[in-house]
Amino acid sequence: MATVNTKTGQVVDRTVLESMLRRRLFYTPSFEIYGGVSGLYDYGPPGCALINNIVDLWRKHFVLEEDMLEVDCTMLTPHEILKTSGHVEKFADWMCKDPKTGEIFRADHLVEEVLEARLKGDKEARGQKVVVDEEKEAKKKKKAKETKAVRLDDAVVKEYEETLAQIDNYDGPELEQIITKYDIRNPTTDGNLLPPVAFNLMFQTSIGPSSNMPGYLRPETAQGQFLNFQKLLDFNQQSMPFASASIGKSFRNEISPRAGLLRVREFLMAEIEHYVDPEGGKKHSRFEEMKDIELSLLSRDVQLSGSTQTTKMTIGKAIESGLVDNETLGYFLARIQLFLLKLGVDPAKLRFRQHMANEMAHYAADCWDAELQTSYGWIECVGCADRSAYDLTVHKNKTGAPLVVREPRAEPLKIEEWQVDLDKKKFGPRFKKDGKTVAAAVEALSQELREKLALDLEQQGKIEVDVEGVSSGKVELDKELIKIEKRTRVENVREYTPNVIEPSFGIGRILYSTLEHVYWSREGDEARGVTIAPTKVLIVPLSNHASFRPLSHRLMMKMRRMGISNRVDDSSASIGKRYARNDELGTPFGITVDFQSVKDNTFTLRDRDSTKQVRASEDEILQALKSLVEGDETWEDIRKRLPEFTGQEVD
Amino acid sequence: MATVNTKTGQVVDRTVLESMLRRRLFYTPSFEIYGGVSGLYDYGPPGCALINNIVDLWRKHFVLEEDMLEVDCTMLTPHEILKTSGHVEKFADWMCKDPKTGEIFRADHLVEEVLEARLKGDKEARGQKVVVDEEKEAKKKKKAKETKAVRLDDAVVKEYEETLAQIDNYDGPELEQIITKYDIRNPTTDGNLLPPVAFNLMFQTSIGPSSNMPGYLRPETAQGQFLNFQKLLDFNQQSMPFASASIGKSFRNEISPRAGLLRVREFLMAEIEHYVDPEGGKKHSRFEEMKDIELSLLSRDVQLSGSTQTTKMTIGKAIESGLVDNETLGYFLARIQLFLLKLGVDPAKLRFRQHMANEMAHYAADCWDAELQTSYGWIECVGCADRSAYDLTVHKNKTGAPLVVREPRAEPLKIEEWQVDLDKKKFGPRFKKDGKTVAAAVEALSQELREKLALDLEQQGKIEVDVEGVSSGKVELDKELIKIEKRTRVENVREYTPNVIEPSFGIGRILYSTLEHVYWSREGDEARGVTIAPTKVLIVPLSNHASFRPLSHRLMMKMRRMGISNRVDDSSASIGKRYARNDELGTPFGITVDFQSVKDNTFTLRDRDSTKQVRASEDEILQALKSLVEGDETWEDIRKRLPEFTGQEVD
Repeated sequence: MATVNTKTGQVVDRTVLESMLRRRLFYTPSFEIYGGVSGLYDYGPPGCALINNIVDLWRKHFVLEEDMLEVDCTMLTPHEILKTSGHVEKFADWMCKDPKTGEIFRADHLVEEVLEARLKGDKEARGQKVVVDEEKEAKKKKKAKETKAVRLDDAVVKEYEETLAQIDNYDGPELEQIITKYDIRNPTTDGNLLPPVAFNLMFQTSIGPSSNMPGYLRPETAQGQFLNFQKLLDFNQQSMPFASASIGKSFRNEISPRAGLLRVREFLMAEIEHYVDPEGGKKHSRFEEMKDIELSLLSRDVQLSGSTQTTKMTIGKAIESGLVDNETLGYFLARIQLFLLKLGVDPAKLRFRQHMANEMAHYAADCWDAELQTSYGWIECVGCADRSAYDLTVHKNKTGAPLVVREPRAEPLKIEEWQVDLDKKKFGPRFKKDGKTVAAAVEALSQELREKLALDLEQQGKIEVDVEGVSSGKVELDKELIKIEKRTRVENVREYTPNVIEPSFGIGRILYSTLEHVYWSREGDEARGVTIAPTKVLIVPLSNHASFRPLSHRLMMKMRRMGISNRVDDSSASIGKRYARNDELGTPFGITVDFQSVKDNTFTLRDRDSTKQVRASEDEILQALKSLVEGDETWEDIRKRLPEFTGQEVD
Repeated sequence: MATVNTKTGQVVDRTVLESMLRRRLFYTPSFEIYGGVSGLYDYGPPGCALINNIVDLWRKHFVLEEDMLEVDCTMLTPHEILKTSGHVEKFADWMCKDPKTGEIFRADHLVEEVLEARLKGDKEARGQKVVVDEEKEAKKKKKAKETKAVRLDDAVVKEYEETLAQIDNYDGPELEQIITKYDIRNPTTDGNLLPPVAFNLMFQTSIGPSSNMPGYLRPETAQGQFLNFQKLLDFNQQSMPFASASIGKSFRNEISPRAGLLRVREFLMAEIEHYVDPEGGKKHSRFEEMKDIELSLLSRDVQLSGSTQTTKMTIGKAIESGLVDNETLGYFLARIQLFLLKLGVDPAKLRFRQHMANEMAHYAADCWDAELQTSYGWIECVGCADRSAYDLTVHKNKTGAPLVVREPRAEPLKIEEWQVDLDKKKFGPRFKKDGKTVAAAVEALSQELREKLALDLEQQGKIEVDVEGVSSGKVELDKELIKIEKRTRVENVREYTPNVIEPSFGIGRILYSTLEHVYWSREGDEARGVTIAPTKVLIVPLSNHASFRPLSHRLMMKMRRMGISNRVDDSSASIGKRYARNDELGTPFGITVDFQSVKDNTFTLRDRDSTKQVRASEDEILQALKSLVEGDETWEDIRKRLPEFTGQEVD
């Protein structure tokens, strides 16, 4: 994907948008007066209002509407938890250091950059047209030295292309081989680099005054939710399925972040952990409501075939055909789409992409990303992963906490199994202080071993069992001490570890992508983005004449009390200029206060997108605004029922 | 303050309340299945809903109502910023380590604990009654060894009491002296302790892959706001005064936190930085609206006299009499009170306490705390500090960024001053490469020095100026090179660094204190806490009869769409039990679904506080609930206009 065209045919110009967003303080680099820190951004008033509106909508759409259990867990997380979850070992990128300049490169990005530059040089040397990939270009901090038009052997081109296609799959030693084999160096200085080393992406700190409790800032909100599973299940009166949800900051110590709001070191996430019985096909009771919703799907198979062609399909059909694994996963994909469309996302720039097997996080069993198309390419904004029983299982095994569901069986289950009886009375005197250790080792024997040992015991009258740490590591038990028999056990309660379906939203990415979609689809397009507009109404007095002030003030106070965010702009700029400034801030409606208003308390209400106006009494205008902001009526509805106003052109 | 009595005469029993709050998952220790970490708590669903409601109300009451500029800045903060702000040096507590056990004590708390125990022992020995201070008791993790009834000299008693009265004022070396002088040891083992060392309370980390950017988790949201001052002033079109506001987590690596939600290592803050012209008495344009509001004030002078007697006074009078310094500070004290009362705080348990001079943070010029009375004593929940121009000045000096306001003067200011003219043409050849350094040193001369040098120059024809790093550190300048004259300069623009008034809210502390107030004031008291109740309505079908289910479901969905949070409880417990369970969760209203409902679609609406019920049609009941939840009507209003229902007793 090279250039993105909008519905209105405009070419997306990121420079223009980003400069506007910074100028209007949607966001701004953090600590800029101290030189800034890459990957850290602050949100200013319009950005904050947008974030708040997105979070608000998310909470209504998911937490309230689906009765999820919201929790707020700490970001500080002790080492042991993230060691158990696998993050200490696996949440890492490979980096290479230039020993001369001290520069640090993310190894996979470096290989990509250098090989692509060489392929580009090869194409130039062959006289072929070079297509610029904006997404890749945007990732480069500094331009490498000018591409050299050097022709490569056909075999080398093929090797490079194969390497690039698999770039996400290499581990450190493999990256090291590639770097050596293709003589990859610092692109700016041509200096040699040290071999790749793993760099953990979690921010480390120390909890408390002694240094014996290392900890991290969480890389996701999920772990806190999992650790509370048992309490949440209790809170839900043991009823399954249910979901917990959490909104909060997470952290990722990127090696060299770029690409603005899309790759940052501190970010707001909204995550749902939906706990479901792994048996019975992971059905969802409200799937019926979703089944006819059509999604653009990009499956794993299509990607393997080298294509990025999406298929339009109802989620019902996608599940019938086995493309999407189960109803619960499908239900959430559809709900995610509804949420994104409510925000104002352009449906033509939304797709669901299935993860490749080697691309998934270490905990995931399956995963679909909701991706939004932007000038940076297709950006993962929501992940929807089936984390299976991975997390609950590892935490259960580590702590012994019963992170399981226990439910009465409709029909008792009969299980044939090899059972062990120990004669505890004789056991103590025989093994003294080791008695418990030996008993525990015996209890832990597998069914297979028990079957074999039962036979040995019958044939030889005694058996040998491995017991770590007791005498030579082997302990002899005879028929007086132990009995092993096949019996039937009746289980009335079923115990299982739920699987977790996890829709996980990157709020900053959604915000940025939606801004791109809304910004480039204004003219002639249906009103979008009203839901999340930071300020809903601009109050514009015709001039700064004293008689307008009490009216502006009264409108402002009345709307504040109605919960409609508004601003008065009584600066001396022309009305047209004031509207233009607020159009940039995304303010969808404007009220003009003029001399007629002073006389008869009527006001003009202006719609940003159509620039049409209506005129009515104060009460009618306020009621219309409430109705528009709450989504009960559209501008078209208002225009039909209130008299149009054309007397005064403000644009 | 020993025991807290509620309005209803009940004695506050913290054990009962805290156990209920944990059982109902208002909050819970984080990582409990891993053994927990002191000072870290997670909020469960009702706690989260309460926090969200408080934040919501805060945003409406302050940000929206007063048109503040909300920002969201990163928590990760580079070292240099917090070095400049003074936190690296001064945001620390003193701690003593027991070299044998490895235990770490906060030095001031330790001195307090030991001396108080000795004073108690002395009283016992003298046969006096010992009054237990619950606040102090609650701070102790383990009980020290049994108090010994040892009588002390009268002089020693006096010394101990004086030391305790000043305990907040001692620095490390002073604490060391006290510990040595009074032979203070580990209270449990009697072992000797190492001398106190400063422990910085910020969590340290490292930003990026190299270790050359140390950073901290912010101890307050304020610094991020200050660093954006210039951009915010631009956003506000250079108009003063204005306020920025921020809601977010901050961190404090407490030495040994206890006291539940009141002293935690990660906490939600809501902070306002109101920027005001230091000249003109810091007036506030909306002060008139607040002036008649009465506050309970505990002044510095009263505290110095050893009393804790508050004075009731309107904020207008408090400013007239000079007790509260200025209108802006007073305006915010009144607004803070209005906010806390809206939340449901008991007005009898709210006071404003002025900080003692030695108690204020390193940046504060004056400070009043809104304190709420709880079973832990009077707890600081909101600080309202005048930070003067401290922060903006230090950041300006460090970075050179113009964190100032520039405004045209109504009347140009004429300033008589000694001005220096240098003959730059001759200057270069004379000093060669040092020319600029010498010129800069001359420009930097103070008015006093200039006056003296002007006289020298006239009398001797030459002067000597200190210039560091040039020749011997002194440079001679004659009349050919320099002229110094008294002239009048006209200044049309005034430049000043604003002062900052900072209301700073600890949301967790407010939550806990409000819960105590609401929990113990239910019977016979006006309805309080409805505003922040996590769930507003409980839907209770009479039984789990199938005919009730569609009705419950319809009510639930309708209310969700109306934004009224509700839950259905169709468990098999009796109606009375189900209501009791939800009374604990603070659910203020209940709807009963019964056989009559199935017939005629009427429902019973129950008020938790009065346990009275009304009955009406579905639409009427839903409309009444909306009105109650949005605060448009009280239960009394509803009771007057809808028919009472007494047919069915549910309690």
